[in-house]
Order: sequence, then structure tokens, then C-alpha cells
Amino acid sequence: MPTGFSRTLASWVVSSREDQIPGDVRREATRSLVNWVGCALGGSQHDVMECSIQALSEFSGPRQASLFGRKERFDILNASLLNAISSHVLDFDDTHLDTIIHPAGPVAPVLFALAERDPIDGRDFLHALVLGVEVECRIGMSIYPSHYDKGYHITGTAGVFGAAVAAGKILGLDEQQMNWALGIAATQSAGLREMFGTMCKAFHPGRAAQNGLMAAILASKGFTSSEQSLEAPRGFTRVLSDKSDLSKLTTGLGDTFEIQRNTYKPYPCGVVIHPAIDACIQLRRSQNLDEKLVEVIDKIELKVHPLVLELTGKKTPMTGLEGKFSVYHSCAIALIQGCAGPSEYTDEIVTSPDVVALRNRVSIIVQEDIREDECLLEITFKDGRSARCHVEHVVGSLEKPMSDTELNEKFYSQAEAVIESRQSKDLVAACWEVATLNDVSVIAKLAAR
Amino acid sequence: MPTGFSRTLASWVVSSREDQIPGDVRREATRSLVNWVGCALGGSQHDVMECSIQALSEFSGPRQASLFGRKERFDILNASLLNAISSHVLDFDDTHLDTIIHPAGPVAPVLFALAERDPIDGRDFLHALVLGVEVECRIGMSIYPSHYDKGYHITGTAGVFGAAVAAGKILGLDEQQMNWALGIAATQSAGLREMFGTMCKAFHPGRAAQNGLMAAILASKGFTSSEQSLEAPRGFTRVLSDKSDLSKLTTGLGDTFEIQRNTYKPYPCGVVIHPAIDACIQLRRSQNLDEKLVEVIDKIELKVHPLVLELTGKKTPMTGLEGKFSVYHSCAIALIQGCAGPSEYTDEIVTSPDVVALRNRVSIIVQEDIREDECLLEITFKDGRSARCHVEHVVGSLEKPMSDTELNEKFYSQAEAVIESRQSKDLVAACWEVATLNDVSVIAKLAAR
Repeated sequence: MPTGFSRTLASWVVSSREDQIPGDVRREATRSLVNWVGCALGGSQHDVMECSIQALSEFSGPRQASLFGRKERFDILNASLLNAISSHVLDFDDTHLDTIIHPAGPVAPVLFALAERDPIDGRDFLHALVLGVEVECRIGMSIYPSHYDKGYHITGTAGVFGAAVAAGKILGLDEQQMNWALGIAATQSAGLREMFGTMCKAFHPGRAAQNGLMAAILASKGFTSSEQSLEAPRGFTRVLSDKSDLSKLTTGLGDTFEIQRNTYKPYPCGVVIHPAIDACIQLRRSQNLDEKLVEVIDKIELKVHPLVLELTGKKTPMTGLEGKFSVYHSCAIALIQGCAGPSEYTDEIVTSPDVVALRNRVSIIVQEDIREDECLLEITFKDGRSARCHVEHVVGSLEKPMSDTELNEKFYSQAEAVIESRQSKDLVAACWEVATLNDVSVIAKLAAR
Repeated sequence: MPTGFSRTLASWVVSSREDQIPGDVRREATRSLVNWVGCALGGSQHDVMECSIQALSEFSGPRQASLFGRKERFDILNASLLNAISSHVLDFDDTHLDTIIHPAGPVAPVLFALAERDPIDGRDFLHALVLGVEVECRIGMSIYPSHYDKGYHITGTAGVFGAAVAAGKILGLDEQQMNWALGIAATQSAGLREMFGTMCKAFHPGRAAQNGLMAAILASKGFTSSEQSLEAPRGFTRVLSDKSDLSKLTTGLGDTFEIQRNTYKPYPCGVVIHPAIDACIQLRRSQNLDEKLVEVIDKIELKVHPLVLELTGKKTPMTGLEGKFSVYHSCAIALIQGCAGPSEYTDEIVTSPDVVALRNRVSIIVQEDIREDECLLEITFKDGRSARCHVEHVVGSLEKPMSDTELNEKFYSQAEAVIESRQSKDLVAACWEVATLNDVSVIAKLAAR
């Protein structure tokens, strides 16, 4: 057994064999993949993509890899960046609730880019995805919540390790190189929560993917780093967090898999708002509310977990991106539309007078004894009546996971706006069958326009 | 006057005119440039360059820009990375002593890369260099020493802002874009001190250069970020430092210029060791010591500032890179060789038996009342005699700066190992005359092989 947390992780990744991954873990990795591919398509036409592609086209190397939902091709480093941005910009991607990491974003695009450079078979692909997510989430767990509370966007800061590990596994790094890759990742780890509501939020998993891949490539050529990058007094967990628990890095390694604790969002916005949206949609249905709510609703009171206000307390969002971090906007549109999909978070909807008028009637009451996946809603009508709704477990939580059918619906809702319906069907079928593919790049090619 | 520190800095950079830069500031910028170009040549054949070039060649975009001291060409983003690595790997580049930032490393290579893409005249080049260094050092000053003590390598973390600002000025960003560029820089800011002694140390200014340039390019296309990236509760200064003084960002902006407090190293190793090296060289000369010191010296005692042990306390360095962070090794070679140039920090010298035997006789005594640029040396000989040396201000300090002649000698000592003697002369002449050049890219072209 190697000594040191960094070396232990590196050694485990290098020695892990594909046939050691249990079938249900592979199954959840496949679900993560289906969800991720849909999200990469969903975000592919966003302004952030137009803007990034315009900025970076001039500097791309050989056109090695596809962009999901687009015609352009880029070298594998830039393709990893861009596909990761695309998959996160709608805030619709997967969530590891224990750390609020969006695990697939920094990892999957790197694996697809590598697969277009040199074929990767489906089981090796899933293996590398599982390992990347494992290391990413364990590093997140070792510093959460102190690291996140301090102001780091953990999907960026932990994601870079996931990308490095997944790429390193595919590139066949030895233990020394894998440990260097962890170090090169550690010293690039970055991303501030201050950026939420701007294009930089999606840039974080983008850079994590690109930088993690580069870490693995550099390490494969002998680029050196610290060999105790995680645990040293001036290493990652000590510098980027005020409190850490290093045992989280290695306890039970290989026995449990964090990807089994991955969840998928029914709504494209901050996950802590989801119980409130569920409650609004349920109450709208039970009360047969129609769209002229401004005329009948007097006030909307929500009792929620403290994180809701901390993360999504934007009272006057001005853009679609800001709307994703506004519990006020999200409740208003859930009540008005009875749903909360990508089209409820456009700049136009966020600033439309009816939505603004209704969101101004939303009050948020924080209660320590309410769980993160729970919420209590009370609406008072102008005629004095009131109605309540209690959401005990939100859809998409570990207790009430999205079904395969719901994941398919979510996939189509994003894919069909971007590619042909027939292509969408072939694509989602290939994703579900990933474990049987000889060459996973077929998915990236099907996802391109 | 705009409100907010980030906006104030962005506004100042955008509105700054070249003719507002005083002549003596331009003069020091030129000295910084001469020093930087020499260092970029000096590091150009190092293993870290071979390894990085091997890793990245496949992914380069159009071959827009030269590498200093080499034949390869890369796109401007990769060229910025590689030339910054090259200029820092010998730890011989400039130092802003108030923050221990190496200011030119992340900034100059970006400007040279941009100049090869579109001509930049000499005065605009110096102007952008001065502005980049100003913002980089002010951001460093606002969080130093807490940020550095925590374990961040400040040349990487603050350097990315310098690169973004310099590039943004050349690209003609407006105030809004410049502020976004600061934000995109802030959210990529990274680099751990744990990496000292490995290739990752030089990677830090490399990534800072590349990421800062990318921040400016993205911002120029409308890529959004926070507009209070420096001062917000979850912004850069709050998250990456436990204590900050935001007034340092803007007080006296435009009246003083930090580049005038830049210094240049006579020795290619951690700057805090320099007084000890000076003392050893002086004492060797005054005592007429020859090379068989192991036979005559019993013990070597150095009284130094506390940072010496904190930063350069490696007792048993195994590689040239580690030797640069060993006061023990540095004293041993200064006594044995009477000098401490790049060839005193090779892997062979660091592990040679004579050097190891002598460094084992070095004791370091930390004294709070000794300044950073001061040191007291006492050597006891086996025959019972002893000798002392007190260095009050080290060569290369603000009080005893490197002269232009010494900068030229330092330049030649690095350049002539890499390019023809005649080419070195033309190159250093072009650097000194930079303010008169119509197209600064002539320097980059002269510096390539």
C-alpha cells in the first residue's frame, strides 16, 4: 500500500480494472452519460457558445473532435472546454448532492474528445468515467462544506481532478505519472462562486475539463509536480479549504462508488430551488390555477432550507442566467406556466412584467429544520382563501430519482431543439448501449450537426 | 469616477494614455524587458521546455508566434504559456520585493505573442507592460502576505490579472470588457507553493500568461463575468486570502508605478537566499579560500530573516530545481565556486559529494531583527580560526540595484549559451531601444533560433 493520500489515489486509479466495476455502478454511469449528452445538446446554441467559439476558433489546433449540437470541430483540449461549457450553461446537468458538484461536466467531454482521437471501447469509457467521478467527488467531500462556503465553485475546483484522472486512465499513465497529473491538476484548480449568474459559471467545468486533460497529457511526457499535492501543508486541501477531512479521500476506496449517489435535475436551475418549483407546480395543479395569477394571488410564502436563500436569493434577476439563481423567479414561472424548462429561463421571460409582478409577491422563510430536498408552500389569495403544499422529497433526489423514462423525456426535450428527431433517437439509443460499443466516438459524431 | 474597485481599475487601464507614463517609469520597464528576454533565453533549453513542447505540439493552432531561444512556433496562447515557463524556470527573473511577485513573466510573453500577430509599436508595448505590472502588483499588495502565507504562488495567482490587463489594453477593450477580463482572470487564478522545486513552479506564470490572454480575448467577444470580481464577498481578494487591504488596489493609481520597485536577480534561485550567497562570495574572496573547503571548514553559521528557512529550507535537495530552494546548497556552491549562476544549479552539482559534504555543515539561525536583504555569516575553520561577513544590502535590492552593465552581463551569460554572439548583441540592443521600435515583434524574431 503506497503512503500518502495523493499516491494512494493515483495507485488505485492506475491499478483499477474494468471488470472490478459492479454492474449497477456501470448502469448509473450510463444514466449519467445519457443525462450529460442531453445537456450538452441543450446548451449548445447558448450565447456563451457563440461567444466562446468566436473567441477561440482562430487558435484551435487540428480539428480532432466534435462539438455536441454544432458543426464546428476543435482540437481535443478546446473541444473539452467547449463541450463542458455547453453541458453546464443551462444548469440542467447532474448533481452529486453531498458536495453540489456537477460530476459529469468536467469528465465526460474529455473522454469523448479522446475517443475521437483514438477509439475507446464502451466499457473502458465507463470505467474511466466512474474513476474520474470517484476522485472528483472524494476530493470534493474531503473539503466540503468549508471550501464551498469560502466561495469556491467546487465543480471547477474538484472537477479538474476528475478530468485528469479519467484522461490519465485512458492515456495509460503509470502511478508516478498519475500522481503528477493530480498535482498539475491541483495547481490549476480555480473558480469563484461570485461568477454565478454570468458566463463564467459554465466556464468553470469547461476549464476544469481542459486543464485536467492537459494535466494528464503533460504528466504522460514527464512533467513533474509535487507528489503530495492533496495532503501537503501547502497542498490543495489545506490551501483551498479551512477545514478538511482527508480520510474521505481513501476510506472504502473501491468498495463504494460516488457515481451511485449522482442525481439528475428535472429543472434547469440551481438544485436547491427544485423543491420550491415542485411545490408550485403541484399547488397550481391541485388548485386549477390558470395564468392570470397576478390578479388573484396576494402572497406566496415558502419555508425552505437555508441554502436556498444563500445560493439562489437573487431578488431582481435581469437575465436568463441570473433567473437560474433566483428562487423568486423560479416560483413565479412554475406557478404561471406549470413547468420550469429551459424556455422559462430566457432573458425575455425573466424580465416580462407578469413574471416580475408575481415574483415580487414571493417571501422566503429560512428554517434550519427543513431538509434540502424539502419545502413548505403557502399561497394566500386576494379573496382571503389560502392553499398549502408540502414537498417531502423533490423529484430528482436520491429518494425519488428520475426514472429512465424521465431521463429520456429530458433528453428529447433538449436534443430535438438542436438535431433531427431521428438522429436524437439513434443518439439516445447509442448512449444507453454505450457498454456494448467498440468505439464510443460514434456518440460524439451522432451528437454533432 | 466609477464605483467599485474592479471597475475603477478597469476604467483606469482603459483611459490611461501612453504619454502619461513618466520617462523614468518607461526606463525601468525597459530594464525589466532586457532582464526578461535574457531569462526567457536562459530557460529555453530546460527539460521543462522539451517536455511541454512535446506534450503540446500536437494541439497547437496556427504557428503565430516564436518561442524565445527555440525553433518551434505556436499559436499565441500556447506561445505565451511556453515563453513564460522558459523565463521563470531558472528562478532568475525579476522580483517585486513587496509581494515576491515575478512581474514580467506572465505579462511580457503575452505582449510579444500579440506583437507577432499584429504589429505593436514600442511605446504602446511598454505602456501595456507598465499597466499589466501595475495591476498585477497592486492586486498582489492587496492580499500579501496573508495570501502567500496560506500557500498560494502569487506570481501565478496575481500574474493572470497582469496578463489580462496588458492583453486587454493592446486589444482595445472598453471599460465593460476590461472589467469582464479582470473577472475571467480572477476565476482562473491558481497556483500552489507546494509545487516549488518541481516543473509546476514555472508552469504558474505560464498558465497565468495564457489564461490572462484568453480572458482578454473572451471579454473582447462579449464573454461576461462578475463586475465586482475583486471586492465582492465571494470575489478574488476575499476567497483567496484571509486578510486583504482593498485600498492598495487604487490609492495613488497613476501617481506611482510599481514597476519602479522591480528588481533583478544576480543569482538564479529564491531571492531570499541572495544575501547569504553574497556573504559567501565575499568571505571566500577576503579569505582567499580555494575549492578544497571540506578539508578546512568546520562549520558555517548564517543568521538570516525568517523567510529564508520558510521558503528555501530544503536540506537535502536532489535536483537542480530543488537546489534553487535550498539555502544550504546555495551557500555551499557559493563558497566552493565563488559564484552562483545557472550552472551551479544542475542535477549533477546538487548531488556531487563535495557540495553535499559542505552543505551539511551549514546551520541557519533565524532572527526576526534581520531584514530580508541582509545576512550575517560566520565560518569556523578546523584550525580554530573564524571569519565573518555582514551583508547589509544584497546586490539586486532596491538599495543596491543591478546596473545596466550588470544587466547586460547577465543577459549575455544566458543568451550566448543559446544563440549566436552577434545575434545576442543585436537582440539586447533592440531591447534597450524598444521605445523607438515601430514593431516590437523584431525582438521575438531575433530571440528565436
